[in-house]
Amino acid sequence: MLDCAIIGGGPAGLTAGLYTTRGGLKNVVLFEKGLPGGQITQSSEIENYPGFFDHTKSGMDFMDSWQKQCFSFGLEHRMDEVLQIQKDGENFSIQIAGKDPVLAKSIIVCTGSTPKRAGIIGEDEFFGKGVSTCATCDGFFYKNKEVAVLGGGDTALEEAYYLSNICSKVYLIHRRDSFRAAPSTVQRVENKKNIEIILDTTVTKILGDNMGVNGILLKDKNENETKLEIPGIFVFVGHNVNNNVLRTSDNNFLCDVNGQGQVIVNLKMHTSVEGLFAAGDIRIDAPKQVISAAGDGAIAALEVISYLQERS
Amino acid sequence: MLDCAIIGGGPAGLTAGLYTTRGGLKNVVLFEKGLPGGQITQSSEIENYPGFFDHTKSGMDFMDSWQKQCFSFGLEHRMDEVLQIQKDGENFSIQIAGKDPVLAKSIIVCTGSTPKRAGIIGEDEFFGKGVSTCATCDGFFYKNKEVAVLGGGDTALEEAYYLSNICSKVYLIHRRDSFRAAPSTVQRVENKKNIEIILDTTVTKILGDNMGVNGILLKDKNENETKLEIPGIFVFVGHNVNNNVLRTSDNNFLCDVNGQGQVIVNLKMHTSVEGLFAAGDIRIDAPKQVISAAGDGAIAALEVISYLQERS
Repeated sequence: MLDCAIIGGGPAGLTAGLYTTRGGLKNVVLFEKGLPGGQITQSSEIENYPGFFDHTKSGMDFMDSWQKQCFSFGLEHRMDEVLQIQKDGENFSIQIAGKDPVLAKSIIVCTGSTPKRAGIIGEDEFFGKGVSTCATCDGFFYKNKEVAVLGGGDTALEEAYYLSNICSKVYLIHRRDSFRAAPSTVQRVENKKNIEIILDTTVTKILGDNMGVNGILLKDKNENETKLEIPGIFVFVGHNVNNNVLRTSDNNFLCDVNGQGQVIVNLKMHTSVEGLFAAGDIRIDAPKQVISAAGDGAIAALEVISYLQERS
Repeated sequence: MLDCAIIGGGPAGLTAGLYTTRGGLKNVVLFEKGLPGGQITQSSEIENYPGFFDHTKSGMDFMDSWQKQCFSFGLEHRMDEVLQIQKDGENFSIQIAGKDPVLAKSIIVCTGSTPKRAGIIGEDEFFGKGVSTCATCDGFFYKNKEVAVLGGGDTALEEAYYLSNICSKVYLIHRRDSFRAAPSTVQRVENKKNIEIILDTTVTKILGDNMGVNGILLKDKNENETKLEIPGIFVFVGHNVNNNVLRTSDNNFLCDVNGQGQVIVNLKMHTSVEGLFAAGDIRIDAPKQVISAAGDGAIAALEVISYLQERS
């Protein structure tokens, strides 16, 4: 029986592991089938995590400095794939691919969310080298430069506006003839002088070299092809919430989630189920930033310790 | 007119400054009458901030690495004392000691809370060198050692229990003949074998040398004096919430606060007043950890950017 099982090894999960074990819990396991670290390991540079300000270091270097620390207080890493979490009386049963289930007194779910890719040639090759899915994270790297934004929903337009305050020009490219975003958001974007809206147009290829992205190819509805010479493209075509481990066999969820499948929590990272906590990008209102996911992980860990104290 | 005024220069305020300015806001001022950094600068060692794991570095060193980063995107620091924040139509007016008021479109309040001191001889001298007000932060430094806990409320007893899972023994010292904490909490502490409860007793002096604390002097109700040889004492005699800037002239508060004066926020760090955000230890349910305060600061900053976009 584990004191606590942490599902997912990004910033939230690692921090939860640090805080639970440093707080005296003995049997804490981090389930992460790959290497811990999360999405940030794909970034070529970090400059908005307070205290870490070294332009020579990549996201992988950044997470290296977390590993030793977060595992130094007794946290155990198991490279298992968690399939499903079930409530089992006061405890939880964790279903694992190809192995026996594991019991745990408490759970912190930190499986995050994954930005969808648009499926463009070059998108994967240049991800983190000019292709981004986070304006807050990467916008500043394009200060006073021209960038493209791909998408037509609220997020795409809000992020285009955000980027327009940093970049010299933003090309907002959408494959349809109108935006799905809220009318007030559309109007704000239309009124911003350095946003150029390009409708009825798809991005067919992302171009680049060893230095990263240097352009994109566009095709309009009349099949006319043009090229934009830009160093960055931001893709906002939605997120997949990684909530599969919370799905029940009748295709509901173990705890309350919102319409997008994000886990509903309060400020203490409590879910609707006692002993089950959520942290990081899987929760409602997540800002999708490393520093905030880590903050969540610490909160959830302290709440687990309190919860187990009260149970004992 | 400022785009955003940040009141308080601890981890929440600095991170809010980093995120607002890196996000493209031009006129952002951090009001902090002292040096930015917050309570953590008084710590002799940090080991629970993910990514920062260097036992040779102090809290002051730690915050040094934040300064350059958080001020590198245009954040301005003013060493002014903010007296009061007033709502002024859509904007805010910030009353400053000895100067003209400053107007701001949005505010992030990050003034934190301050642990009360017990007023014992040696308490200030050895603060951060054996005297602590945070078990989560400092408990692990006393792994398998004996420590004392001072206080009789819920926090004192919960923190004593937390420490008892890390330390070899915890002396729980209270000046009265019974605890104010919840009965279930009292019982849990009474049942824990390595917690020794010492009632009707005060700590008269904290002893130490260049290496830090090495003992405490106790006096019971019959004036008998004893000495405990321990390397650490945790003082839990309450917190002052630093909410004076939010007080109105009729002694209410500008926004909703709870019974302890903590600012009520949602997961987006919105207060009950539009354009006014709170982050860090001043808010309800704050875990009082650097990583979480910083996470709050990032959230509040992103919400300020959205708020100003919608207003524009």
